[in-house]
Amino acid sequence: MTAAVQLEIIRRDEGSRARRGCLHTPHGPVETPCFMPVGTQATVKATTPAELRLAGAEIILANTYHLYLRPGADLVRRAGGLHRFMHWDGAILTDSGGYQVYSLGALRKISEAGVAFRSHLDGASVFLRPEDAMTIQRDLGADIIMAFDECAPYPCAPAYAAESAALTARWLRRCLRAAPGGEQALFGIVQGSVFADLRRDCARDLADLDLAGYGIGGLSVGEPKGLMYEMLEAVVPELPEDRPRYLMGVGSPDALVNGVLRGVDMFDCVLPTRIARNGTAMTRAGRVVIKNARYAEDFLPLDPGCACETCRHYSRAYLRHLFQAKEILGLRLLTLHNLHFLETLMREIRAAISAGDLAAYGRGFLAAYGYTDSKEMSF
Amino acid sequence: MTAAVQLEIIRRDEGSRARRGCLHTPHGPVETPCFMPVGTQATVKATTPAELRLAGAEIILANTYHLYLRPGADLVRRAGGLHRFMHWDGAILTDSGGYQVYSLGALRKISEAGVAFRSHLDGASVFLRPEDAMTIQRDLGADIIMAFDECAPYPCAPAYAAESAALTARWLRRCLRAAPGGEQALFGIVQGSVFADLRRDCARDLADLDLAGYGIGGLSVGEPKGLMYEMLEAVVPELPEDRPRYLMGVGSPDALVNGVLRGVDMFDCVLPTRIARNGTAMTRAGRVVIKNARYAEDFLPLDPGCACETCRHYSRAYLRHLFQAKEILGLRLLTLHNLHFLETLMREIRAAISAGDLAAYGRGFLAAYGYTDSKEMSF
Repeated sequence: MTAAVQLEIIRRDEGSRARRGCLHTPHGPVETPCFMPVGTQATVKATTPAELRLAGAEIILANTYHLYLRPGADLVRRAGGLHRFMHWDGAILTDSGGYQVYSLGALRKISEAGVAFRSHLDGASVFLRPEDAMTIQRDLGADIIMAFDECAPYPCAPAYAAESAALTARWLRRCLRAAPGGEQALFGIVQGSVFADLRRDCARDLADLDLAGYGIGGLSVGEPKGLMYEMLEAVVPELPEDRPRYLMGVGSPDALVNGVLRGVDMFDCVLPTRIARNGTAMTRAGRVVIKNARYAEDFLPLDPGCACETCRHYSRAYLRHLFQAKEILGLRLLTLHNLHFLETLMREIRAAISAGDLAAYGRGFLAAYGYTDSKEMSF
Repeated sequence: MTAAVQLEIIRRDEGSRARRGCLHTPHGPVETPCFMPVGTQATVKATTPAELRLAGAEIILANTYHLYLRPGADLVRRAGGLHRFMHWDGAILTDSGGYQVYSLGALRKISEAGVAFRSHLDGASVFLRPEDAMTIQRDLGADIIMAFDECAPYPCAPAYAAESAALTARWLRRCLRAAPGGEQALFGIVQGSVFADLRRDCARDLADLDLAGYGIGGLSVGEPKGLMYEMLEAVVPELPEDRPRYLMGVGSPDALVNGVLRGVDMFDCVLPTRIARNGTAMTRAGRVVIKNARYAEDFLPLDPGCACETCRHYSRAYLRHLFQAKEILGLRLLTLHNLHFLETLMREIRAAISAGDLAAYGRGFLAAYGYTDSKEMSF
């Protein structure tokens, strides 16, 4: 079977597992490694699709759980699918809802059949089976859909992690039988908490299923970053070389660099947009908390050298004023900047892979960003 | 003395006092009659300057009172003035702070010298004299600055209105002595509550002073619209024909049409941006409250026939979803639409004046908008 989404590998890095590629999707090519902005409720918060394009995004993520509850998958289907509903003509990946259900904590109950939970909107009882996750994602119409998984909490006992990974594996088989196929590619998800053996077994099992792509889930849930990198080092060698690998929910600049070096092709995270709305910008020199009094009369751009609209047109003093005055334009401009920052980082990473100097680029970037943990940088 | 701002009259309407013109300012030409979006805190809420331009705005208003308190006029001056601070290269008009101080109600005390009030931000005691209003507006650097006035409440006794208008007249003389001149044009403000004789006297007094332009203040403060139109009919004939007339704080579509017919050249109001943030759109067919359940599965644009970005790309169902989900993009898109709607109305009004069919245009527009008060339409 030819998957709807195909990874073309363009260049492999010699000193690491990093590779540059192009993910061919029904909604255009996506250069990898890539970062996917998160559009939870069919909008990447505070931005328009045109702004996402300008920032450099070619693929975005939307959340099945949220859209299922509101406005409803059926409505999105009748609107012509998610692309048309939200006016985004690039690629879309929808998660399966598994992670959001996991975040509900005590509000959900997991069984072999699926997950019972209460809606965070109105408290209504909902039961979601792997088959439902497929139907909903079919209606949403994303280019890439994710298998329904259980995301184990951190920390968790080895026995729980093993049981959870096994359940996720059984659910994956049900997803495969219920998957819409056609223009939608199904990715499986490697679980196994922070246990390398478990992760490795899970990856091998998934590799045997010859999936269109592989999510690596259940990381960045509270464990030290070093453990996350160890898991990547255990999982990636087991996955098929020609399939995309997607590290779910990870978006800090240091983790993007370190993830790429360990063979990851795709990332997503609410981090850049969420911290922007709280007034924090990512810059070459580290984080800038714009409300800080030191910026009150600072007429320089947020990140000198950055080419985004925010940095070309507005000063730190103005941005600080907007946040002090609780003006929406402030969080709009920081959101644009942070997305531009991460998309630019990914573009530079891709260029560094092509130029054969990814290690040097990564070290330089992380040092300037104020990130000096040499152990995690040991690539 | 040649004022920094000059009105060139291009065409007079035969059946009314309406005229089409071009206001030449240090920051480019402004076609009149015009509507000025309000950028209270050095940002028209939820929009960028580029979006304002796209909507058709050539001039915006900013509030002296707010900017004086935060971030401070001195900071704006050191940032290179308001245009540069907020990255708007079109014309700017700043109000004097008089109206905002008036809105503080019991929190302010008016004397011959000026107004004592408490800051709405931190309760600090502030004293604002007409001379201060000039200094602050000089620092902000707008193309058009307004005299410091007292805006009488509605209703108010004739004696109070007369006393208040007299105080405003004395303050105007002080403003004239303290005005920065140069590239900044000072407009006086006609007061007089809803008393035609008082308004007429006030207008004559101001006309004698040969000002760069004339604000008509203290209207749209609770009085019936018919009374507002009567006041315009009393005031406008007394004002110099070759100077711009600015009806302050008025922005409902019906009042724009009726104001233009009575000789008004400029308007401003928070209405289009404020109601947008609450989910109300202005359309050719009247107001649309987008949260209404009837729009849940309505895949038509907000205002079919409208050429704004919102109407070209998004459905009512999507906009409703954004408001239901409290997404910032929702109020962004409605703000864009409402501004585009009013700026388009003004452009059509100007075209109708040139074509000699303003009365027919106005009647057609108001009828479609659901506005059928024939008395107010008696032009």
